[in-house]
This record gives sequence, structure tokens and C-alpha cells, in this order.
Amino acid sequence: MTDQTVAAAFVPGHITGLFTVNQTADPATTGSRGAGFTLKDGVTVTVRPADERSVSLDGEATDIESVRRVLDALAIDAAVEIHTDLPIGTGFGLSGGMGLGTALAANEGFELGRTETELIQVAHSADVEAGTGLGDVVAQARGGIVLRLDPGAPPHGRLDGIPGTERVEFLTLGELSTPAVLTDNPETITRAGTRTLEKLQSDPTREQFIDTASEFSAEVGLATPRLQSILEDVEAAGGMASMAMLGETVFAFGHDLSEAGYDPTVSQIDPSGARVWE
Amino acid sequence: MTDQTVAAAFVPGHITGLFTVNQTADPATTGSRGAGFTLKDGVTVTVRPADERSVSLDGEATDIESVRRVLDALAIDAAVEIHTDLPIGTGFGLSGGMGLGTALAANEGFELGRTETELIQVAHSADVEAGTGLGDVVAQARGGIVLRLDPGAPPHGRLDGIPGTERVEFLTLGELSTPAVLTDNPETITRAGTRTLEKLQSDPTREQFIDTASEFSAEVGLATPRLQSILEDVEAAGGMASMAMLGETVFAFGHDLSEAGYDPTVSQIDPSGARVWE
Repeated sequence: MTDQTVAAAFVPGHITGLFTVNQTADPATTGSRGAGFTLKDGVTVTVRPADERSVSLDGEATDIESVRRVLDALAIDAAVEIHTDLPIGTGFGLSGGMGLGTALAANEGFELGRTETELIQVAHSADVEAGTGLGDVVAQARGGIVLRLDPGAPPHGRLDGIPGTERVEFLTLGELSTPAVLTDNPETITRAGTRTLEKLQSDPTREQFIDTASEFSAEVGLATPRLQSILEDVEAAGGMASMAMLGETVFAFGHDLSEAGYDPTVSQIDPSGARVWE
Repeated sequence: MTDQTVAAAFVPGHITGLFTVNQTADPATTGSRGAGFTLKDGVTVTVRPADERSVSLDGEATDIESVRRVLDALAIDAAVEIHTDLPIGTGFGLSGGMGLGTALAANEGFELGRTETELIQVAHSADVEAGTGLGDVVAQARGGIVLRLDPGAPPHGRLDGIPGTERVEFLTLGELSTPAVLTDNPETITRAGTRTLEKLQSDPTREQFIDTASEFSAEVGLATPRLQSILEDVEAAGGMASMAMLGETVFAFGHDLSEAGYDPTVSQIDPSGARVWE
């Protein structure tokens, strides 16, 4: 194959504010309803033709199941180099992003001739099967504040969006192991996610997004004590924050974290979605 | 109303390469199937609260039906300022873009609380009712090389995309009055559009896009003699070009127009789609 060249893609990070769990027998229709937003920060994935498969993350050799599953699905071997400024495993949808970036870059460099829908399907199924995400990939492909009205990859998962960008502040305290409620009692999550998504759809604004995400977080009780303490500090300062689903990460729009006395990382909503590197 | 502020949006220009005509009794389901791509160049629309409605284009007062219809649909009066580097009326989907930009900016500045789908519906219907476009708005909202698999605004019009960006060259000779074939014999257009869209779907690549657009153009015979002469020059130089539907504009990817001895305007495919100005 002489048509293989190096190619790269950018996929924005994605913070989920509220969600449901929708398991089916098919990874393409498995997923989640809910709402989240993409960030200007994210992952860049470079795919190079190589005789032997390899994956590196910020220069360190590693194995990432979502990436491996995407390479399997596309039936290619390649050297995959991933870089990110976001912290891993803390609620930024990076597993899904790495898979989607691999799919986009491989399609470009290996001239696979897949459409965007086909590549999103591959990356969504890889994320679901790896157990690392339910709704990140479809939101990352679209960009902005994304409402996931139906679960699953296109053409199953109908999406909408709340327009506009916004300054984002976040603080990451650490990873969060998959909470018992998610595996043992997903109906609790889904009940809260369904109710707050309906409330957000009745008033689809950025203010309502953060309000309903905060309600969802309180209702499902996933915040650790130190996350809870920050959320209360922000509220006491007249602001509003919530937690990233799922990581020990607090996020707010505007200056609500810094105005509560914290020193957050500053980013912005990315309205553009995943794209092949120009 | 104290919540009104000035806001702006960018909408990429959109060149249609091949299309069908799908008329229904409802503007939301009226539209076209086909394929086109968005440009880094486009329109910026600024919407300011004002007691009296006004619209200006590059500093000149004017009346633009798609914009007027969007303001009507959103029930607002505002001063709308539009700027563009692209030539008007020559196949860049600017009427639709001005309507969509007005909708996005008005939603932001007037805090209308509409979702992206709702704003795209408003702008698509305005473009259809003004008779200025059938498929530009939905493609401009998404960005990239957009395949319109079904006609109409969301949730009716299912879309897909061919990933990637590309250098674009174009030459604009002038406006093109609506050709007789479009009004008198739309079935001829739709037959050619259906066949070439199927061919593009069977090999969804940038190369196949320009090939099928060129086939569509030849089959429907809309090229003026001087457009035809440029298309032949590019082909003689080993390249491939086609015409924008509908304007007296020739476009090519890469350097195919300059390598045929022309001095084209240079742009690039915009993968991001319409967005509120940051």
C-alpha cells in the first residue's frame, strides 16, 4: 500500500454534566442520553504507517483499549502518538477522544474512504466495549454544549445543541473509580438524568445547563467530600459549579471558581467538534 | 427588556457541487439532497438591539429577504450588520448564511433560549421561502464536506460528512440568473443529483466529490460558455474543477486552477460549521 501517509486529528475534551445509562445488546445503540460540553483543550492523535502496532501517550508507550479496538475495527496497524494537556481518567472523555482521533487520522492517512458517521460509529462502539464511555464520542464529534436526546451512535443517537461559547474553569483533584451506583443501580442514575435533561430541554440555556448538572450531581450523590466542599464554597460565593461525570473534577462557567477563591485551570467551550488536523 | 446585548456569529460560505430539488408543502421538509463543502471564508453577522429594524451589508443599507424572515420568525427588531469577503449571488450560499448568522447572533444577544436545531429550522425555512436556497443552511450549520442524505431541516434532513480539510481555489465570473431548467424541469436536476450522490456515497472521498460534481455539472448543462472553457482548461492541465451551484463560479481542490494558468482566490474547507462569535 503506497497511499499511506502520516495524518493527525484533534478531538476536544468533553465534560458530561448529566446522563442516563442505556444498555442494549448492540454497542452502536448502547449509550446514554444527557448533556455535556466540549473544551478547546483535548487530544491530538497522530497516526503513522508502521509494520508493528504501537501507542504512546505524551511520549510514553502504553496500551489504550479504545484505540486498540478502533485499529482492530479499521483493520490497520499503525504507530499512534497521542498528546493531551488534560488530565487522564478524571472526567474529560479522553478514552473516547483518543479512539475518535485515531479513527479520523487513520481514515485520512490510510485513505480508508469512511464517512464521518462510519468513523463515529467505530469510535463510539470501541468506547462502549472498552467500558470507558457511553456518550463522549458523539458529543466530541459535534462540539459545543451537546444535548444527547437519544442514546447511541448515528444514525441512532439524535443530538441537539445549546449555541454559544463560554469561559470554562475547572479543578481536578484526582481519578474516581467507577462508583458502585453506576454498576449496581444504574436506574438511579437514569431517573435523575431523565428528569434533569427534561428540565434542561424546557429552558435550553447555559445557565440552566449548570443548574441542572448541579441538581443531577446532588441527586446521584457521586461527589466526594472534598468535591462537595468546593461546590459549597462556589455556591456560598454566589456562583454555581458541578462535577464532571465521572472524575474528581469540578467545573464552572465564567469566573465562578476563581471568585470563590480557587485557582482553576481556564479553558473555553469548543463549538467546532473533532476534526482532521489542517 | 434589559437582557439584550450585541452579539455576533460566523457562518461559513457553502459551495454546492451536486443536488436534487425536493419541494413539499412545508418549508421544513422542502430542501435538497446532495453534496457541498463549507469555506473558511463566510459571513459575520452582528445583531444589535434597536427600536427600528435595519440591515446593512458591508456598510450599505439593504434588505435581505432571508434575514427579514428570520427576524420575523424570532419576533425581534434589531440592527443587523453583515460583512463578507465572498462575492454575493455567485453560489456561496450567502443568503442562507446571513439568515443563519442572524438567528445565532439574535439567540445569543436577545437570550431567546432556542436550541441549535430550532435556529437551523428557522434559517432553513427562511431561505426556502425566500427562494434563495434549499440545502445551504443545514450544511453551513455542520461544516466540512457535507452529504445531504435527506432533504429538509433537522430532524428531517439526515446528514453525513466526508472528513478532512483541503485547500480550495475558486474564480468568480459573475452572477447567474436562475436557469430555466431549475424552475421548468427540476426532475432533470434531481435525476442527475440522485445518480451522482449515489456514486459519491459508494466512494466518499474528496477526489470522488470533485469528480461527481463535475459529472453533475456536465449532465445538467448549467455551465456558461466561459465557465465551460475554464473547466476544459483545468482538465487539459490534468486537474479537475467544477462549478458552484448556482453561480458563475469555478472551484477546484489543491492547486488545479492555478496549475491551469489561472489566478484564483485561495481558501480552505472549514470543518467547524456556523458558530456564535467568541
